[in-house]
Formats: sequence, C-alpha cells, structure tokens
Amino acid sequence: MKKIPVGILGATGIVGQRFIQMLESHPWFEVAWLAASDRSEGREYSDAARWRLKTPIPASVAKMRVSAAAPSGAPKVIFAALDASIAAELEPRFAEAGCAVISNSSALRMAKDVPLVIPEVNPDHVKLIECQSWRRKSKGFVVTNSNCSAMGLVLALAPLHKKFELETVMAVTMQAVSGAGYPGVASLDILGNVIPYIAKEEEKMEEETRKLLGTLNGAGVTLAPFKMSAQCNRVAVEDGHTESVSVKLKKKAQATDILAAWEEFSGIPQEQKFPTAPEVPVRYVSASDRPQPRFDVEFGGGMTTTVGRLRSCPVLDWKFTLLSHNTIRGAAGAALLNAELLKSQGYLE
Amino acid sequence: MKKIPVGILGATGIVGQRFIQMLESHPWFEVAWLAASDRSEGREYSDAARWRLKTPIPASVAKMRVSAAAPSGAPKVIFAALDASIAAELEPRFAEAGCAVISNSSALRMAKDVPLVIPEVNPDHVKLIECQSWRRKSKGFVVTNSNCSAMGLVLALAPLHKKFELETVMAVTMQAVSGAGYPGVASLDILGNVIPYIAKEEEKMEEETRKLLGTLNGAGVTLAPFKMSAQCNRVAVEDGHTESVSVKLKKKAQATDILAAWEEFSGIPQEQKFPTAPEVPVRYVSASDRPQPRFDVEFGGGMTTTVGRLRSCPVLDWKFTLLSHNTIRGAAGAALLNAELLKSQGYLE
Amino acid sequence: MKKIPVGILGATGIVGQRFIQMLESHPWFEVAWLAASDRSEGREYSDAARWRLKTPIPASVAKMRVSAAAPSGAPKVIFAALDASIAAELEPRFAEAGCAVISNSSALRMAKDVPLVIPEVNPDHVKLIECQSWRRKSKGFVVTNSNCSAMGLVLALAPLHKKFELETVMAVTMQAVSGAGYPGVASLDILGNVIPYIAKEEEKMEEETRKLLGTLNGAGVTLAPFKMSAQCNRVAVEDGHTESVSVKLKKKAQATDILAAWEEFSGIPQEQKFPTAPEVPVRYVSASDRPQPRFDVEFGGGMTTTVGRLRSCPVLDWKFTLLSHNTIRGAAGAALLNAELLKSQGYLE
Amino acid sequence: MKKIPVGILGATGIVGQRFIQMLESHPWFEVAWLAASDRSEGREYSDAARWRLKTPIPASVAKMRVSAAAPSGAPKVIFAALDASIAAELEPRFAEAGCAVISNSSALRMAKDVPLVIPEVNPDHVKLIECQSWRRKSKGFVVTNSNCSAMGLVLALAPLHKKFELETVMAVTMQAVSGAGYPGVASLDILGNVIPYIAKEEEKMEEETRKLLGTLNGAGVTLAPFKMSAQCNRVAVEDGHTESVSVKLKKKAQATDILAAWEEFSGIPQEQKFPTAPEVPVRYVSASDRPQPRFDVEFGGGMTTTVGRLRSCPVLDWKFTLLSHNTIRGAAGAALLNAELLKSQGYLE
Repeated sequence: MKKIPVGILGATGIVGQRFIQMLESHPWFEVAWLAASDRSEGREYSDAARWRLKTPIPASVAKMRVSAAAPSGAPKVIFAALDASIAAELEPRFAEAGCAVISNSSALRMAKDVPLVIPEVNPDHVKLIECQSWRRKSKGFVVTNSNCSAMGLVLALAPLHKKFELETVMAVTMQAVSGAGYPGVASLDILGNVIPYIAKEEEKMEEETRKLLGTLNGAGVTLAPFKMSAQCNRVAVEDGHTESVSVKLKKKAQATDILAAWEEFSGIPQEQKFPTAPEVPVRYVSASDRPQPRFDVEFGGGMTTTVGRLRSCPVLDWKFTLLSHNTIRGAAGAALLNAELLKSQGYLE
Repeated sequence: MKKIPVGILGATGIVGQRFIQMLESHPWFEVAWLAASDRSEGREYSDAARWRLKTPIPASVAKMRVSAAAPSGAPKVIFAALDASIAAELEPRFAEAGCAVISNSSALRMAKDVPLVIPEVNPDHVKLIECQSWRRKSKGFVVTNSNCSAMGLVLALAPLHKKFELETVMAVTMQAVSGAGYPGVASLDILGNVIPYIAKEEEKMEEETRKLLGTLNGAGVTLAPFKMSAQCNRVAVEDGHTESVSVKLKKKAQATDILAAWEEFSGIPQEQKFPTAPEVPVRYVSASDRPQPRFDVEFGGGMTTTVGRLRSCPVLDWKFTLLSHNTIRGAAGAALLNAELLKSQGYLE
Repeated sequence: MKKIPVGILGATGIVGQRFIQMLESHPWFEVAWLAASDRSEGREYSDAARWRLKTPIPASVAKMRVSAAAPSGAPKVIFAALDASIAAELEPRFAEAGCAVISNSSALRMAKDVPLVIPEVNPDHVKLIECQSWRRKSKGFVVTNSNCSAMGLVLALAPLHKKFELETVMAVTMQAVSGAGYPGVASLDILGNVIPYIAKEEEKMEEETRKLLGTLNGAGVTLAPFKMSAQCNRVAVEDGHTESVSVKLKKKAQATDILAAWEEFSGIPQEQKFPTAPEVPVRYVSASDRPQPRFDVEFGGGMTTTVGRLRSCPVLDWKFTLLSHNTIRGAAGAALLNAELLKSQGYLE
Repeated sequence: MKKIPVGILGATGIVGQRFIQMLESHPWFEVAWLAASDRSEGREYSDAARWRLKTPIPASVAKMRVSAAAPSGAPKVIFAALDASIAAELEPRFAEAGCAVISNSSALRMAKDVPLVIPEVNPDHVKLIECQSWRRKSKGFVVTNSNCSAMGLVLALAPLHKKFELETVMAVTMQAVSGAGYPGVASLDILGNVIPYIAKEEEKMEEETRKLLGTLNGAGVTLAPFKMSAQCNRVAVEDGHTESVSVKLKKKAQATDILAAWEEFSGIPQEQKFPTAPEVPVRYVSASDRPQPRFDVEFGGGMTTTVGRLRSCPVLDWKFTLLSHNTIRGAAGAALLNAELLKSQGYLE
C-alpha cells in the first residue's frame, strides 16, 4: 500500500515534533511537507526546530525544508498543531483549499459544524464534516481533537456515561509543563512550585467534555446534559496530566460495575486495530498510590488513560485519579487516531 | 515576665525543629527540655538532630541534652510532635502526669473529650479540657491542632461557614514534601512526579474539618453538618500545601460577600495580639495565577492562609484556590498559637 | 542626609528587580527613575514588570512610570542591568551624558579603561575611571562588576592569592536558573536535567577572574598571571551558584593557613560598614556536606560567599566547594556595593 | 542453548531491580534465585520489593520467593548488589562455596587479587581470578565492576590513555539520585539543591580509575601512573551522572585525534557481540550543549558513555563533558557485561 503523504502545520513546536516522531514509521501516512512560522520558512527542519524529544529527528525529516504556511504545494492531509489565534485563520484556509485538516488546535473545536472527536468515544460525530461549507465547495474539512486535559478525562468518563449516565463531574488537574509548549513554562515559575492557573483551560475542559460526550443532532451536537466543573493547575512534571475526579451517576453503580465498565471499554480503533490505537484505552491500576506520571505515562505508547484509586465520594458518588499523556494521547496521538478513523471511513481519499 | 519553660516531644523531627525555630525568641515560652526517640537520648541536640531548616539551630538549644521521652523531669507545658502510634501511648502519659500537652499529632484529635482547636475558629472548644479525666486527676490535659491539609482549608472555610453556612465542600490538595517529615518522601518518588495518595490524609481532612467547624455540645463536639470530600496528592514542593476547593453555601452569597467575609475574618489571636498570630489570618490575592508556594507561603510568617481565584463553580456555588504553610500554620505554629490561647485563658498556670 | 536619586536601566528584568528590592530601604540611594525596553515605556512599573521576587514590589516603585532608555531626564547615578548587546550601545551614551554608570553587564568589563571591581578585592581599580574619555568630557564614567560565576570564585580566591599567590585555578560550576534571567531557562530544559553549557560563561570566568585579581598598571590592569580553566553547567536550582574548585599556590600553605586567610579576609566595605556589605565576605562551613544552596545561599543577605570541603587535591594543592548568590552578590548586590564604594570615595557627587 | 541459572544478592534494591529488568529476556542467563535482607526472606518478590522501574516486574520473577542470603540452594552464578559492609562478609562466603560472584559492590574492588573489570577496557584483568584462594579451593571467585561515577569516566579515558597516555585527570561529577539507592536521597535534601558531597565517592573514583587503567602484573595490578582528582556532587536528576573532565596527555594530540580515538574505540564486547554490549561504547555528540541526562542517558540501552564539548583547557590540555547511566552501565549493566565476558572465556562452566 502506498502511504498517504501528509503535511504538518506548526511542525517546529512540541506537538509538531510529536507528530513527526509518531509518524516516523507509520504504516499509512508519511510526512511530506512541513510548515511553521515565517522565521523557519526555507530552513532545514533540523535547523529550524529546537528538537525536544528523546528519540532523534527522523533522518527523512531532518533535511526537509520548512515551507510557508499556505495551502499551495501542501498535501491534501494536514495535521495542524497551531496556536489558536493562528489556527483560526489558517485552518479554514487549508480546508477551503480542499485539505483534510486534522487539528489539535482549540480554535474551531466548539464550532457548530466542526467535529470534536475521540475515535473510541464519539466516532459518529465525524459526520458533521458533511455540514461544512468547505466540504461542499472543495471537499476540504476540519476535524478536531480535544484539549489535553479533557482527553484523559473523557476517556475515563465515557464508559461510565454510556452505562450509568453522568449527572455531575468535578475534576482538578495537575498538568505537565510540556502542555505549554516550548519554551513554555519558565523554570523560575515551576521549580518547587504549583501554578494554580492555566489560561482558558478550565473553560475548555468544561465545554469540550460535554461536546465529546454529547449527541449528534442533525447539523450539530447536543451537549451532554451533566454539570461539569474543572480546576486546572500546573506542576513540575515533564509529561502527563494527573487529575483528581469525582462523579455522580444517574444509575447507581457498585465499584465492581465501574471497574467492569472501564475494563470492557473499547471502540473502533481497537476493533479495527488502528496503528496508533492502544490495546487498552482505559486501564485501571489497583496499587493504592497509582497512577503516577513516573510509572504510568508511557503505558500503551502514551495512548492509554490510566485510572486508579476508585473509592466512594462523600459528596458525589465516586472519586478516582486518572493520568493521561498530554502530548501523545492529549495532542499528536489524538489527531493521528482521528486521521486513522477518517482514513478507515474513506474520508482521506 | 518570666518565661514559661516548655518541653518538646519529638524534638528532632521536622516539626520538632520548627517548634525550636519558632520558640527561639518567643516572649512567653522558652525551650527547657527536649525529648526524642531512644536513639537520640543523652546526645546533644545538634548532634542528635539532622537540622533541615534554613536558620541555624538556636545556640541555647544546640548544646541541650536530649532527654528520655518520659514525664519525669519534664516541664509542665509540652509541645508534642510525635508519630500517631507513639503519641497514642505517650501523650496520655504526660497528661496523666499533670502536663499540658499541646499536640500536633493525629492520635487523639478525634477523641470525644479532646479539643481540636484553631484559635481564630473555635476557641470555645478548649473547654472540653474540663471533661478530660487527666484534668480532674492531675490538672494535665491534651489539646490538639489539625492535620496540615485541614488547617488551611478550615481557615478559608470558617468565615464562609459563619456567614453563609456550608452545605458541601470538595477539596483536592497538592501537598509539599515537608509534610511527610524527614527523610520522608524519597527523591526518586517525587522528582518530576505526582503521588496521588497520602496514607489516611483524606480521612483526616474530612473528619477534622467538620469537628473544627462543629459546635461544642456539653462533653463533646457536634460535627458540622456539611458534606465534605477530599483528594490528597503529593507534589515536588518543599513547603506549602495548595488546595483546589469548591463549596456550596446554604445562604446565597455574591463574590463580594465572600471576599468581605475573608477580609473581615479575625479572632482572639488578632484581638489579643498573640505573639505568633498573623495580622491577617486569611488573605485574598487578586492576581489570576496566585496563590503560589513560591511567592505566598511565607506570608504572615507562614501563619496566614492565602486564597485566590474565587470564581463561580458550575456544580457547587464557588470555587477557589488556597495555600497554607504546612509545617508552620499546619503544624508547629498551630500548636504554638493554641498554647498562646491556653496561656491567655489561664490554662498554663 | 538626603538620598541620592538613582536610575535603573533594565528595570523589569530579574536583576533590575533585585536592584529595586535591595534599594527599597537603602540609606544612601533612592530609586527615582526606571527604564526598560520600548515595550515597557510609559507603563506603570507594576504593570510592565513580571515581578518574580518573594517580597512585594515596593509601593514607591510600583506606580512609577517606565521611562525611555535615554539619558535625558535620567538621574546622574545609573544602575545598569542590560543584555550585553544593548549595554554596549547604551552605557557609553549615558556615561557621555555625564552619568555614573554602575553596570552589571558584560559589555565593557574587559575594556582597558573600565574598572571591573569587587570592593573587598580590588577597590583601587576604580581609579581607571580617570582614564575614561567620558570622564574628561562630561564627568560621566562606567564601573562594572563581574559575571555571577566569577564573583563567588574571586571572593574565595582573593584571600589565597594575596597570601599565597595563585598559580593555577580550575573551577566547575553548577549554576542556578535565575542567572539566565526571566523567562530564561525553559522548564522542559532543566527539570531532572543538567545542561553542560552556558554561552560565553567559561570565557567570562576565565578572563574576569584574572582581571579582578590583576594589578592596576597606569591606564590599565595587568591580568593576574595564574592559569585558569572553567567549566560551566546549569542545574535545577533557583538561586545560588555552586562551584567545585581546585587551586595550586606558589607559596605552600597548610589547611589551617587557608582557613585563616578566609577568616581574616575583609575589606573597605567591612571597615567602613557599607550598607550592603556583609559582615563576613567569605565564610567557611565545616560540615562535610556544605555549602548547599538550600541552606547557605541567603547567608549575609546573599552577599557572603560560603566555602566548604577544603581538602588536599592530588593534582593541584587544594580543592574546595563554594556557593554564591548569583542575583545578589553576583549581580545587583555587586553593583550596589560598587556604588557604595564610589560614593565613599566621592565619585558620586 | 540452555540458559545459565543466576542468583541475585540484594535483589530488592535499585540495582537488584535493574539486574532483574536487564535479565528479563537475556539470551544466556535466567534469574533462578533471589536473596535480600532478613526482612524480605520468604516473601514473594513483588511483595518484598518496592519496585521503582518504569517497566513492570517480569512475571517470572514477581512470584518468586526471596531466599536467605546464604550459599546453600543458590545457583553457581551470583550477581551481587549489596551494601559494602554486607558484601564484605557475604561475597567471600559465596565465593568460598564455589560461586562465581559478579559484584557491583565496592567491598573487594581494590583487593589485590580481585579483578576490577570493564570488558572494553581491561578484559585481561579477569585472569587475577586464578590468584584467588577461593578459586583454588572451590572454583568460586569474585569479579567486580567499578563505582558508577568511575565507569563513565574510564570509558571516556581509556581510548585516550591507550593512544596518548594520561598524565593528569581532573573530574567533577553531578550525580543522579538513583545512585544512592532507594529510598536514598530525601526529597527535602535535593529539590532545588546541590549536595557537594557523596561519602567515599571521590576516593573510589580516584583509585578505581587508576586500577581499571592499570597494568596486570603477575598477582596484582599496577595502578596507572597518572594523577587523578575527583570532586563529587549530587544533583536533582533521576538517572545519569554528568562529569566535567580535564586531562593532560603525555603525547600531544589534536582535537581530531581525540575524536578519532573515541570513535574507533571498541573491545571484546563489540567484537563478540555480547548481548548487553552497546554497539558504540563511547559516542561523541557535537551539539554545543550536550550531553544532557534528558536526551542522552538511554543511548545504547544505557550502556554507552556520551561525550561532548571537547575543547582545549587553559590549564591541562583538553576538557570535555561526559554522561553515563549510573544504574545501567554504572551498575547492573556493568556486572552483566562482566558476566558475559566471563562466560565467553569459559569461567562460568
């Protein structure tokens, strides 16, 4: 099978780097085009990017020239890892030019006709593509994945919502510094410290969670009707968002029911064995002091959400801790899994 | 005025060290006796203790011999900073021998006739002393302060409970490593990591908060009737517990009402200008990304709880972040303020 | 005594902030003027600066407007905390306009007629001022202090050089992140890491050390004739540069001789009791595992160099560890002490 | 080929864990026996050990019972990861009982008839085994590998010593916390800190380096005749010792000669393709700010020493930075490579 050439918008940032790393030996896609800000244009990638990952830059990418961030010359499948303000301008332009824009940016996530998708959770939402005006004009479209802090949460909540219906969700996050990109968080701000604020993060978590667990409804998504409150903190961790969560369920459930819901949870990526799909999308660890970023963040290649410490909550019904890799499942891996879903459904032809 | 001689049980630990540091130039009390485990007995304090504070060991204490942890020879006022299992055995023995035991341990906090006290919050609870059998026999008694994670929370909640009555409280903590004593948390466990578990901490927070805000009721305390849920995490911070809190109030309040409640909050320590009392027990900071351990933990000499980020909660009514120094206001400073309350009320004569 | 009004060039950076903090209650100087980059011009200081120190912005400074970085309107005494490239352009302009420029920048440190001064070490070098063309034209001049990594080293070396003459010096540094300014070192670069490189730092250490310990020689300084090699590393420490040093001496010395040299070391700042002078410029700690940033960096208000672990070196003669506060003694405090020296010698009238 | 059953003394510690991890799919050896302190005896390994590695406990080991640390019942090949004081007593006992003791402990490293070996560097030293009295009595023997801080240094020095002869070596280390075992370094001691002292580490580096690079001389080793000085520091890094090194060579060499010496360096493990051998024992990275633990410590499976920043030294001839994984190449991997050498030479039959 010939691989589909893909482009990366925002290729020099931390998430752009993860895209390149995860695409290095991808069986379906190959990196054919890289774009970044004007400053990088025309330079070799290895020179333009300040590579921050532990594996080296793939040789095939290192010498690639960085293109201007414009559709002319770009392949038809584009992974976008742009700041929201830039994405708001560029993503529509690429979609209009006929590109499948698979975006990690927040710019269009909540737009009525833009699907916000996790393949294990709401694969049917991709149909919203057909409502996009770009699609009608040029066959182009935009599909998005969620914020990194919403991602792990929704994977842990989806099995519960499906079986027992969520009534209330409260989540407090302890987020890794890689979530802020590079250079991102200054070392003087985080060494020995906690920063109890991440701009717009709580709003994103609260609305994206309800769209992801919402119901496709003609040309839009009806948000899931539960109440949701988030508090977001930054901690001195490199990769991996930890979250302390409490939930109230409409249908009462025992601990064993909840554990079973997580264990049984699986979706199209697992059934169809997508290249980037983890075998286990949600894993429960029984040790009393887990999950921890140090031990659990790489599980499932960084695509699994690890849950632990399930116990009853004196206020709502249940509380637990979850951990999710923020730049893999929470960003590049999420978009890649979306691309695999789109490919399997014939949207990338 | 002649200073009251005091003893310290558990003098070599981190909290014992804080007692010594805070008592160095205390106008009412002076360290006259130190006790620790058998291993330390008979040694000079500077030799027995692995001093971990930034100020040096006070010269008057450095050369003091560490005594056996038994009442004979001990002064009548004892600060206790012992592990719970040892406290359970030793504290009653000192009380029985006629000592005023001002304890930071969890062993007796929830005992029916033992006051759990924050002088700004529930000073009347000290009267429970009169119900203690030790008191009747030997004039000795035990008074306790709360767990370090409950302390900051209760200081922030008390003004709200008093004015608007709490209905529900949810708190997620990000706790400093000094809370685990020394050597305490291994560096391999916390560098670049979060540990989502601290043994018995959530149970202590949930019950102590309700006892501290409860009502003195003859020979006991009726727990405050609100619902309370806690989740406790350890982070790579040296000093200062940060907490993400949500509350539901019986009487509806505007943000300005809540800010006013915090601002007006004050108690006996402030009125009577106790030596260890902070001018401001609860301080609100308006910057969007505060409080932070790095900037706020030392405020008020480590005796002030700093609150920030008040905003409405989509699930309960209000959410906010608080920060409290865990070994000062959350341990040694708490006991010292209790001692000052007891002294001012004639219990230490 | 009326205080001398001073200005700060580069007032919003980390060193600029330290100047403001250290000048808050200075008996001789008061902040009258602040300048920073164009971006900050015209804004209130508290709005323009991202304040990173633990004490709050002094009230008198918080509301001050940031001026353009040009001599017109500036006071006659200027503390400069500028990047080297900007300093190279601005410092001469202020000197030419008649200002006493007391600079922390590296731009002019090695210029033939610019004194590089530590008041305890080479106060006579200030006389080079008289060779400056600015001085002759407008009475203005430039005086500099050393790089933060050279500062602690030279304070520890000066007593040895004076008594025993240095023949060879080798130093390996472990430098704090605050030395790189703010935002400076990205958290992703330093959490759990060591960076074995700081641009131009080794060159600065090697040449500045020899100029500081050199001999005033008419219109210039003859570099001290010892050999010097430096290796500079960045570590995850907030404040405080630790250095592992080995030295060879021309006149053989016993350990007790060296300890005595450090203990006796003192200079004009101590004799004349300059406001910013530490009582003890070089302190030796005998504990086997000290100095450490955690315990020793604030000693002497951050103006003392702490030395420890003196032991014989199988290659050179002696080895030891030193610690120096990089933004106090290594930057703002150094300049301030230079200003106090200049004032005491009548150069600021 | 049937695998050789091996035992691990000190199986529950950090190095014991690394042995188990590295032996999990080893083609020549299999874990058949585990021993640890009395406290662990009789318990299942997964229960006795506080597993601190990121990969899970191999299933075959998890359920194994921990044996008493005595030779009866132990296999004939023993990896020892014991504290020096215990090793001094136990290792001779196992050797006397006929075991091949392949030790990571410092107890016997400098003993006259005990080989201290790095297979790429001094494989001929294993012949010292024949001088051991144990060998004659029972066929048992002891072979040791070096301290973790000497290991990376010697790998970088060996190619230089062979070609250009070392005259002087100075090394300053910045060592990871895993080198102190578990719980090892307390978090309160290392967060935001540097500890400029590791007990006995400098002495070990200085003498082991010279034994490893020394010459087999009948029944002993003549130490290499160069002068060597070490200074050892602990930093907040999880795995990987970084070292700033300066060397003086007898035969003058250009930078290209040195780079070539490193590049060409190879030994028996590479020639015979030992299972644990890295393809490249010494790798040079040309980026100006490398090696760094974050990026380089896992290279070659943690068995490669990475060198960088070669530049001339104003005091000696050359200076450079090196990085070595302290619990892999510096401990368990070192012993394993020694075992592979012994096996290939017929000593384990």
